[in-house]
Amino acid sequence: MALEGIEKVARNEAGIEAVLGILRQRYGERFHTGQAIREQHGHTTTYIPGQAPDGVLFAEAAEEVQEAVRICADHSVPVIPFGTGSSLEGHVNAPGGGISVDLSRMNKVLAVHAEDLDCTVEPGVTRTQLNDYLRDTGLFFPIDPGADASLGGMASTRASGTNAVRYGTMRENVMSVSAVMADGRLINTAKRARKTSAGYDLTRLLVGSEGTLGIITSLTLKLHGIPQAVSGGVCPFPTVDAACNAVIMTVQMGIPVARIELINGLGMKGINAYSKLDYPEGPCLFLEFHGSESGVAEQAEMFGEIADELGGGPFNWTTVAEERNKLWKARHDAYWAGLALRPGAKALSTDVCVPISRLADCISETEADIAEMKLVAPIVGHAGDGNFHVMVLMDMADADEIARTEEFVARLNMRAIAMDGTCTGEHGIGQGKMQYLTHELGSAVDYMRAVKQALDPKCIMNPGKIFAMKG
Amino acid sequence: MALEGIEKVARNEAGIEAVLGILRQRYGERFHTGQAIREQHGHTTTYIPGQAPDGVLFAEAAEEVQEAVRICADHSVPVIPFGTGSSLEGHVNAPGGGISVDLSRMNKVLAVHAEDLDCTVEPGVTRTQLNDYLRDTGLFFPIDPGADASLGGMASTRASGTNAVRYGTMRENVMSVSAVMADGRLINTAKRARKTSAGYDLTRLLVGSEGTLGIITSLTLKLHGIPQAVSGGVCPFPTVDAACNAVIMTVQMGIPVARIELINGLGMKGINAYSKLDYPEGPCLFLEFHGSESGVAEQAEMFGEIADELGGGPFNWTTVAEERNKLWKARHDAYWAGLALRPGAKALSTDVCVPISRLADCISETEADIAEMKLVAPIVGHAGDGNFHVMVLMDMADADEIARTEEFVARLNMRAIAMDGTCTGEHGIGQGKMQYLTHELGSAVDYMRAVKQALDPKCIMNPGKIFAMKG
Repeated sequence: MALEGIEKVARNEAGIEAVLGILRQRYGERFHTGQAIREQHGHTTTYIPGQAPDGVLFAEAAEEVQEAVRICADHSVPVIPFGTGSSLEGHVNAPGGGISVDLSRMNKVLAVHAEDLDCTVEPGVTRTQLNDYLRDTGLFFPIDPGADASLGGMASTRASGTNAVRYGTMRENVMSVSAVMADGRLINTAKRARKTSAGYDLTRLLVGSEGTLGIITSLTLKLHGIPQAVSGGVCPFPTVDAACNAVIMTVQMGIPVARIELINGLGMKGINAYSKLDYPEGPCLFLEFHGSESGVAEQAEMFGEIADELGGGPFNWTTVAEERNKLWKARHDAYWAGLALRPGAKALSTDVCVPISRLADCISETEADIAEMKLVAPIVGHAGDGNFHVMVLMDMADADEIARTEEFVARLNMRAIAMDGTCTGEHGIGQGKMQYLTHELGSAVDYMRAVKQALDPKCIMNPGKIFAMKG
Repeated sequence: MALEGIEKVARNEAGIEAVLGILRQRYGERFHTGQAIREQHGHTTTYIPGQAPDGVLFAEAAEEVQEAVRICADHSVPVIPFGTGSSLEGHVNAPGGGISVDLSRMNKVLAVHAEDLDCTVEPGVTRTQLNDYLRDTGLFFPIDPGADASLGGMASTRASGTNAVRYGTMRENVMSVSAVMADGRLINTAKRARKTSAGYDLTRLLVGSEGTLGIITSLTLKLHGIPQAVSGGVCPFPTVDAACNAVIMTVQMGIPVARIELINGLGMKGINAYSKLDYPEGPCLFLEFHGSESGVAEQAEMFGEIADELGGGPFNWTTVAEERNKLWKARHDAYWAGLALRPGAKALSTDVCVPISRLADCISETEADIAEMKLVAPIVGHAGDGNFHVMVLMDMADADEIARTEEFVARLNMRAIAMDGTCTGEHGIGQGKMQYLTHELGSAVDYMRAVKQALDPKCIMNPGKIFAMKG
């Protein structure tokens, strides 16, 4: 397995020993050094093996996070924040060891300001927990990455998901964060106004920084009104190309589609088998529209006409909740359905995102490459954003297949970058994509590194992620 | 006049002399040192006097901006970017002298990607120039700060305006920038994908950085489909409180209002006099809705019901373009109408932004303070965002009135901050609000300063803005 491009982080054994001693004494049974818990806190879904931290602190307050960071800073020991561990790019791995700060117990909703359409939460609150809490307010938090991730983790990876096409990503929906910086100080990045021109945008500097600049201890999030009505359905297309053109026309006509998800033929086959459904087994779009009763009907009708014009359809849509839930359950189960296509395989997810005008080309070339490389790999995509995931099902016992997968992923990332796209639309760089970040943004990465150096001079905040500090 | 809190920037006479010589020789008549042009490039609309740069370079390409920055860096001389000069917070002032880089000749639209709903422009393109260029594409760029500002300048101040409530601000609509950094290197912050999780968000670090981190040499912007139909109208309310509650209900019900602007009684009086209209002279909301024919009618009807419920109205709305244009012309002329309320006065604009639940309180307390301080000061507000401008009409010959104005502004900024708001929703910090930024964000400002120090160690990029470098 190629571990080139993965930054090695030297272990500071003496510092780690000292920190373990202090934290053990200070936090007693809330500080864990047992192997099972450590391994659960250092893992990855990439080729890179799990790298367990030396200890795990279950923090219960911002002051405890501050204290942990200060102790680690004093001894130059890495600190790695941990939410639910659902990130995909090895963000929770500890390549140089150190302390995992588990924030799952910081899971209080601190305030809901219904009139302002915002709320403030601790970082361990998960998205479904928040939406359950909001149930009686008529409001909801839209960002849905599939996994029931923690909101702090979602902010740290700049997560999005199925309805970003309408509601934006964490970038647009985090209004401010409180964060413990590398020197142990706690800052708040912005007040609760909807707009601000007050200095540098530290909020968006921390969102997507993957824990490398600070540890988020609270977040203020935009909320949205639960739509009065929702319509949705599945629409088949003769080709990926036709489906992508339907997406472009939908977006261009200003139809405020809430979800527009592409699944390719193999993906649909998996979904039918896993969820016992009988959708057409070619490229399909899964759609959802939010608005007034008449609005969602109008939007669905307009989309139906687009599909028809492009040789797709029929677009059967419904406003009945159970039927819509069935269809989105099937979409959300695409990961499990994919795994079921090849029992025993490990799934690796890619995450390229291209301008939507290039989406059809990018997917077609990628499908051809999957065939050429003899891989089993369904595709699901957040088509409205130009973002798609190839789920490569690898036989981990087959070294040649793993090598082919790596080559395929490299080609895919470079293809997307050549199309003016990115190697990561929503998962982050983590450990495995450093080299692609450099291909993608060139010398801009030097300025990211300069920011890191300025805000974390000892490089203790989640080291070995996003970029190599050596340059 | 209180110039405390304004950072003094020491002049580097020897360096400036050297740079003037080099630029004069290199650029000939494109480099100006005449007093009139210099003064036109260093001004402010605050209490702070104009501070002219020592020379003005009319740059025509990114390479020229790079060269100018490198020459200035070699001699530790300030570089101040200049678009149209319409910013309000002294951003173009040169407190330590130096070179103004005028970008108005870099005014080409470089690419329009209609399928992707984006375009790439040089920084000197103005918003109306861009919209004229887009006329045949069915697309438009929505951000409208009133002035026909340059898009590079709008990005640098994180500008917004009347329709941010629906379309967002420059923060949400700039997809990437190319920028010349303090060491003279040119970087591009992101590819053209709609979403990305590729490293730190340098795009949003540069947006709103007021030229203190780099000079933008091109921008990729999101475009939006021109709505099929538009409706709009003016709705009177018995009190500011009732008007603000109508705003809250509109936003909370998820009506996708495109513009919802508040003008108080004095503001309406000015508008009627200036534009020869006969609107009610109490608090009014100016509204606009974008959507399908049936959608904009539905939205307007829904708003009319809200107004009625709160004792406001009648809400007379129309989809006829000439009538709508008349109403928005009147709104956009509010600045001139304000000036006409007190001929000969200078207008100073404040820019606080609060959570909308606090907007009514903030405006009511501010109106009371205007009366107590015996000032003439109409109010116009981007109510949907909680952002409002008090336009204080000052007799510049009356020192006591100027002192009262300063005190009033200080109290207003502190009031907004105490209400969890900001001293600037869209104009920026510039020279005059440094002390309020510190009140607002406390130690977070230290990390902004650390970023500045890391990316511009010689502090040549627009020095004396946003924060004092001494700390």
